[in-house]
Amino acid sequence: VDSGQVLVNIGNHFDLKASVFTAPRRGIYSFSFHVVKVYNRQTIQVNLMQNEYPVISAFAGDQDVTREAASNGVLLMVERDDRVYLKLERGNLMGGWKYSTFSGFLVFPL
Amino acid sequence: VDSGQVLVNIGNHFDLKASVFTAPRRGIYSFSFHVVKVYNRQTIQVNLMQNEYPVISAFAGDQDVTREAASNGVLLMVERDDRVYLKLERGNLMGGWKYSTFSGFLVFPL
Amino acid sequence: VDSGQVLVNIGNHFDLKASVFTAPRRGIYSFSFHVVKVYNRQTIQVNLMQNEYPVISAFAGDQDVTREAASNGVLLMVERDDRVYLKLERGNLMGGWKYSTFSGFLVFPL
Repeated sequence: VDSGQVLVNIGNHFDLKASVFTAPRRGIYSFSFHVVKVYNRQTIQVNLMQNEYPVISAFAGDQDVTREAASNGVLLMVERDDRVYLKLERGNLMGGWKYSTFSGFLVFPL
Repeated sequence: VDSGQVLVNIGNHFDLKASVFTAPRRGIYSFSFHVVKVYNRQTIQVNLMQNEYPVISAFAGDQDVTREAASNGVLLMVERDDRVYLKLERGNLMGGWKYSTFSGFLVFPL
Repeated sequence: VDSGQVLVNIGNHFDLKASVFTAPRRGIYSFSFHVVKVYNRQTIQVNLMQNEYPVISAFAGDQDVTREAASNGVLLMVERDDRVYLKLERGNLMGGWKYSTFSGFLVFPL
């Protein structure tokens, strides 16, 4: 999410340059993302990563559509200082991350 | 979201006729929507609006599919009395807003 | 969600075998799901069920796509001991529930 706009960043736990969320404390967080593919006939696969490990994936593979989103969401138990971020596992985003969103918030602390 | 059914409207901050959410207090809110296009070869673009301004967009443009959703979600900092609603920016919904959802809740107050 | 992995199950209110969420108390819950269809030309319809009743539906019907998600989400008022689960109303999931997610959490108690 390189060139995106961060709409809400309470607590400054999002690193704006790399769009890595670093957990300020242990707890259950809700994460969701919608990554939009623009004018691109390739299939994309987007992984939500916790530290070095993929947790969930989403796909967009339609060949005839100008804009299509790879979306998913999850509740995650996160340790303090864990890093959560999106990784484009397959394909590329020719139009950049425009229209894409990535949201996370603490559901409850542990 | 004209003819929809409001499943949950705690606090009566949703205006049922126009489906405008009016914020009862300042805070971070989570909003998400899934707008379903039915038997329609046009591309639709749905904007989530905060007052008069579009915040995020979602698209559905597949020509061969009977039902397809334009989905997105975001965390928003909202001032008291801000209005948040969906706007069909492009295309039309021939089948109305059936199967479509629009949800918002306060994540934490500010 | 038979063969899935439950990432977070705080309170043990998810029945791992059947993926039925049984509400521990009355309140407003946020539920969302992304059910992924893999190599399948059929249309699928997924219903989110509260007890015996469908609340919302989602569809995936693209014929030319290897992976496509039927996604939706909703805020629900849930009584104590209500059961909330996903039901495949139409079509089948040849690849099982791989990549699919189903999340729910209490937004606030009533």
